[in-house]
Amino acid sequence: MPHSQDTSSLLENLRMELRRGSLILAVLAGLRSEQYGYTLRKILSDLGMEIEEGTLYPLLRRLETQGLLLSEWREADKRNKRFYKLSPLGAEVLEKLLAEWKAIDSSLNQIVKG
Amino acid sequence: MPHSQDTSSLLENLRMELRRGSLILAVLAGLRSEQYGYTLRKILSDLGMEIEEGTLYPLLRRLETQGLLLSEWREADKRNKRFYKLSPLGAEVLEKLLAEWKAIDSSLNQIVKG
Repeated sequence: MPHSQDTSSLLENLRMELRRGSLILAVLAGLRSEQYGYTLRKILSDLGMEIEEGTLYPLLRRLETQGLLLSEWREADKRNKRFYKLSPLGAEVLEKLLAEWKAIDSSLNQIVKG
Repeated sequence: MPHSQDTSSLLENLRMELRRGSLILAVLAGLRSEQYGYTLRKILSDLGMEIEEGTLYPLLRRLETQGLLLSEWREADKRNKRFYKLSPLGAEVLEKLLAEWKAIDSSLNQIVKG
């Protein structure tokens, strides 16, 4: 059987692929209350969803460009931070993606049982 | 608010992104019993997980190259078909990815509640 990668890096890649789609959902859900990057990362990581800064910051900018987030610069801890929160469109999209997530989870559970 | 795409195509893209990671899991789980492309697509679509041929066939080849699937040509319905099934490595990876999926689902549920 051809192995193009060693097993642990193969598994790691598949794990990341699985996790990637759910990150957006986690970020949108985390931003129902206003946060800046550090506090958002802390909230998500405390609940088991680690996101590296190099992944989170570009994702936040992308989601803002797509109209799903609103942001503003304000001072916190004596430094200027960019605060993000969900836009009304983002709230709508979050609700639909959560429904999609539940549908996927239910399909997967049936396939696994089947 | 800048909208780089109309809302329905934006939502569609996010939906696909969410679904993509779970497809591999669905394909691996579906191939615990041997199937060929058509029967696998039918099983998955009956359980709510639609996969287009143009997505499924490259994915099957990729998973075989990675050592997660075994395949052989055999006749079915008077035509030669490539039958796929999970390899022992694929079974191991499936088990680990299912555990990862449950962890992601549980994190997401907590973030959504929080």
